[in-house]
Amino acid sequence: MAEVISDRRDIDFVLYEQLDTQSILDSGAFDDVNKKMADMVIKEARNLAVKEILPTYTLGDKEGVVFDRGEVRVPECFRPVHKLLVEGEWGALTEAPEFGGQGLPHIVAQAALEYMIGANYTFMTYAILGHGAGKMVDIFGTPEQKQLFLKKMYTCEWGSTMLLTEPQAGSDLGALTTSAVKNDDRTYSITGGKIFITNGQQDLTENIIHPVLARIEGAPEGTKGISIFLVPKIWVNPDGTLGEDNDVVCTGVEDKMGIHGSPTCSLSLGSKGKCRGWLLGEENQGMAIMFHMMNDVRLEVGTQAFTHASCAYLHALDYATGRLQGRALEDSAKPGAPQVPIIQHPDVRRMLLKMKAYVEGMRSLTLFTAFCFDKKSCAATPEEREQYGGLIEILTPVVKAYCSEKGFDVCVDGMQIFGGYGYTKEYPMEQLTRDCKICSIYEGANGIQAMDFLGRKIAMNKGAYLDSLMGEMKKTIARARTHELLGDMADQLEAAADKFHKTAMDIAGSIQSPAFKSAFAVAHPLMDAAGDVIMAWMLLWRATAALPALEKRLKGKSMDEVVARDKTAAFYHGKLMAARFFMETLLPVTLGKLDALCTDNNPAVTIQENAF
Amino acid sequence: MAEVISDRRDIDFVLYEQLDTQSILDSGAFDDVNKKMADMVIKEARNLAVKEILPTYTLGDKEGVVFDRGEVRVPECFRPVHKLLVEGEWGALTEAPEFGGQGLPHIVAQAALEYMIGANYTFMTYAILGHGAGKMVDIFGTPEQKQLFLKKMYTCEWGSTMLLTEPQAGSDLGALTTSAVKNDDRTYSITGGKIFITNGQQDLTENIIHPVLARIEGAPEGTKGISIFLVPKIWVNPDGTLGEDNDVVCTGVEDKMGIHGSPTCSLSLGSKGKCRGWLLGEENQGMAIMFHMMNDVRLEVGTQAFTHASCAYLHALDYATGRLQGRALEDSAKPGAPQVPIIQHPDVRRMLLKMKAYVEGMRSLTLFTAFCFDKKSCAATPEEREQYGGLIEILTPVVKAYCSEKGFDVCVDGMQIFGGYGYTKEYPMEQLTRDCKICSIYEGANGIQAMDFLGRKIAMNKGAYLDSLMGEMKKTIARARTHELLGDMADQLEAAADKFHKTAMDIAGSIQSPAFKSAFAVAHPLMDAAGDVIMAWMLLWRATAALPALEKRLKGKSMDEVVARDKTAAFYHGKLMAARFFMETLLPVTLGKLDALCTDNNPAVTIQENAF
Repeated sequence: MAEVISDRRDIDFVLYEQLDTQSILDSGAFDDVNKKMADMVIKEARNLAVKEILPTYTLGDKEGVVFDRGEVRVPECFRPVHKLLVEGEWGALTEAPEFGGQGLPHIVAQAALEYMIGANYTFMTYAILGHGAGKMVDIFGTPEQKQLFLKKMYTCEWGSTMLLTEPQAGSDLGALTTSAVKNDDRTYSITGGKIFITNGQQDLTENIIHPVLARIEGAPEGTKGISIFLVPKIWVNPDGTLGEDNDVVCTGVEDKMGIHGSPTCSLSLGSKGKCRGWLLGEENQGMAIMFHMMNDVRLEVGTQAFTHASCAYLHALDYATGRLQGRALEDSAKPGAPQVPIIQHPDVRRMLLKMKAYVEGMRSLTLFTAFCFDKKSCAATPEEREQYGGLIEILTPVVKAYCSEKGFDVCVDGMQIFGGYGYTKEYPMEQLTRDCKICSIYEGANGIQAMDFLGRKIAMNKGAYLDSLMGEMKKTIARARTHELLGDMADQLEAAADKFHKTAMDIAGSIQSPAFKSAFAVAHPLMDAAGDVIMAWMLLWRATAALPALEKRLKGKSMDEVVARDKTAAFYHGKLMAARFFMETLLPVTLGKLDALCTDNNPAVTIQENAF
Repeated sequence: MAEVISDRRDIDFVLYEQLDTQSILDSGAFDDVNKKMADMVIKEARNLAVKEILPTYTLGDKEGVVFDRGEVRVPECFRPVHKLLVEGEWGALTEAPEFGGQGLPHIVAQAALEYMIGANYTFMTYAILGHGAGKMVDIFGTPEQKQLFLKKMYTCEWGSTMLLTEPQAGSDLGALTTSAVKNDDRTYSITGGKIFITNGQQDLTENIIHPVLARIEGAPEGTKGISIFLVPKIWVNPDGTLGEDNDVVCTGVEDKMGIHGSPTCSLSLGSKGKCRGWLLGEENQGMAIMFHMMNDVRLEVGTQAFTHASCAYLHALDYATGRLQGRALEDSAKPGAPQVPIIQHPDVRRMLLKMKAYVEGMRSLTLFTAFCFDKKSCAATPEEREQYGGLIEILTPVVKAYCSEKGFDVCVDGMQIFGGYGYTKEYPMEQLTRDCKICSIYEGANGIQAMDFLGRKIAMNKGAYLDSLMGEMKKTIARARTHELLGDMADQLEAAADKFHKTAMDIAGSIQSPAFKSAFAVAHPLMDAAGDVIMAWMLLWRATAALPALEKRLKGKSMDEVVARDKTAAFYHGKLMAARFFMETLLPVTLGKLDALCTDNNPAVTIQENAF
């Protein structure tokens, strides 16, 4: 496989030309981090990703996991690489060094993770799930719990999971029935069954810490009566040594379409009456605590899908540049004309530029979201903190859902460029597509994200978060208008953004009306349109950063001439072209999508069930 | 797996209420076929499909094919079912009974095949590839060739293939190098290598007939110098007995994303200098002859994708009706409210109705195309024949490409409705999605279909084929306007159809201009918009057929009340709702797509390669 995951130059471009990462580094919130160190971390992540992780990608898929009498064997090739990641403390880059973190800004960690997740997400699940789970211990754990678990979770020396789903309670957590009974020693006895547990059983780490949602005897019904417990696979004694087996049994592993190197487990807790856990936080606060992890995880899922797309794009570009097939369109009537690389065919170029536009837009979106985390951390005023918090809130469901769908589409386009080869396992395209598909489903199916986006993030905040987002877009539009070459694109984005804003507020206004079901029937298409507008914004923002750099290189010569000879000029020119392509060939479709948000007696709502 | 493939009532609805199949049966062109017999064939196809073929679906995928030293072992479960299909002469339903056909109209055969292909396309490749290959022998073969091969090909007692692709010649057949040298006995010695050959080697049939594209010594370059040969796996003596091995060696089988029960082979011909074939038709006429097969095959690929979608829809509907999860939206604040089937959630309904609209639109499109074949056969005048011929020409790339893409999208939506279960092999959704993906790639990748659609089917005919298509749409629009309830949908379709027509002619006009590359860069989006408009047309047409039948059942009562109690009324009401959903929530997006067809300096064309 070619060494293609992500484009370092493009990452740097976003960090230091589109976004003002320097202001984060200079803020004083990250004492020991400067640009040189940030660059080094990203470079080292790339090395690890390309040299160590990437070779496990195809291999891990072929070997898969083996389930045998309650034990799960992971692909052999994962073992030495996991060890490197634990030793290098790559698991929780943004957390405190005393617990195995690196104290890095989110934006630097995101750039580093882009490489590592892109190289083999399935493998990386073992190295990053500890972050989300650990974060809950970090915030809500007792000093003793932190001491016992946190460093091992953050570094992924021990595995971590999240035990939410039960057969009758998937998206609907309020229906879960796993029970907890308090013991005299302050532990709780846990009994129940969980399904779809990523890495619920594995032989890569000596222990696994399971955060478990369960219901304490007598607790209220629904989500209000859910508590969260830390349940180790092997009991951990107060001195940190391992005790006996904690009665968590893996009863099965799903046979899946993709992510074959990561087991999706069914777990039985307490079938012998011997499963114990510690309460995390207060009783009945499980949902609120769990959501602290969920937002992180949702951003990671968006990153997972986006990096699959990034790989697919770079592979397809490489293939299209080298694969000779057919003649140039202008020579199609000349039998003796030579075969040309397929990148010369207009339809292949259309697919490639579409892929490039989405990939670069998603990269900017994921990095911008990380940037908001940092800006929130080092905000000078409560207003600023609130503003960036709001941006994170409204962007999270979009990053999760939109990136998972558009990332998948990019993978599918990549397969198409490879023709018949794209469908075979000789090239990584079909695996990228299979692996990427999970993203729209897990960690909150995209329909749930859409309800969150419309119902919580827009409507419940009376549009305040959306106002913040629009404000950011307007800044970019104003900046673009200062460049003669970008004025028309600024107009295109503004028209789409304004139309989106008005439509979203109209729909949000109707969710308390009798038409609320029709409103929720368009929640997903609305979120999809939001994603489109955000892509257009990100691409225009990139163009505003690229154009001045490009113009500096022209020195009175024509753009075409300079771009043809100067790789750096070509790089910047690519940003303008991706933006223009999006504005002219994709954004008009978004306007159509906004016209299609039928909230007045939506047939999907009014159709009777027996008429389906 | 549930017994769900296709809905017999919906097939009958299209045959006898939407389309005037009775006129075909009464035309006199099909002597022995009446409605009773047609119904019986379709019923028997359904029986075979559900009872015999469907049980091989999951099994065939799991077992797959085994390649071992040149031999290919097919899944065991395929053997008895293949025997049934050969004995029942299901391979070439529309062909002459003397050669193993059934002399049926295309529209009846299409309805029957919908079941059989839907039950297991991978298995059916063994039973239908003989039709396309045999058709060439039927039209271009000598009496001796027909006598020796045709019945065994049409019935699939022997396997058939099509040897087009070579490593350096995929979409670009002019580049192929397999050679043919004439021998004294009028046979030709064939030497070369072919790849991506569906069922190129298998142990299901005692012989395989390979139509092979090759170049005779001294032939012109490019596609003009290509001839086609019949190359049996085992030589066939003049008396029909089998002779010796014909030096066709399987050198490998692709490891693919899906269709695991059908081997995709690399074949080496004449590596020992002993491969012989018969010329089919005249020298250098190979491309023209091959295209006789291609159109049939392209319609079958469209059917393949559509039937996957049909299965996905019916499975998803079944699951959504039974799966309890979450509370009704109006009860979301009541913790004690009962769980409801997920079909009550607006976003699930949106996905289901979208799936239903596409599935039913594609069913009507594939059956209408078959209907055009029959109308062409029994045309009363040359003009009528030409008109239906033109409709077939312009619809073929749309059926192949649009159904392959929308069929795949429907499968992906089906996975989403199943949540985590959709990603597992416990349910058929992930296999449907994997299997369906091939459709956009093989038998002419969709980019090739788009060039055919714009360059040949529209531009080269000065819009005549498109005029025919528009004429058919206008008939439906006029009919819809006679119903008060359908007038607004008629307006919506007409606006979209007119806009599409104008845009298509503008773009077709520019393919001879200096902007020809930009025109071809939007060929695919244009074809996609065409498919949307055709879906809207088909759904409105269905609504015009359904409404009178529905109104007859109302008898003065309210529609809601009647639909709630009367399954037949609900069936017809579903047609109206699918049409309305498409017009209101999908067709506005199509208008956006038409606005997005950028033919003026399309950035995909003007971007320099080093800027990607």
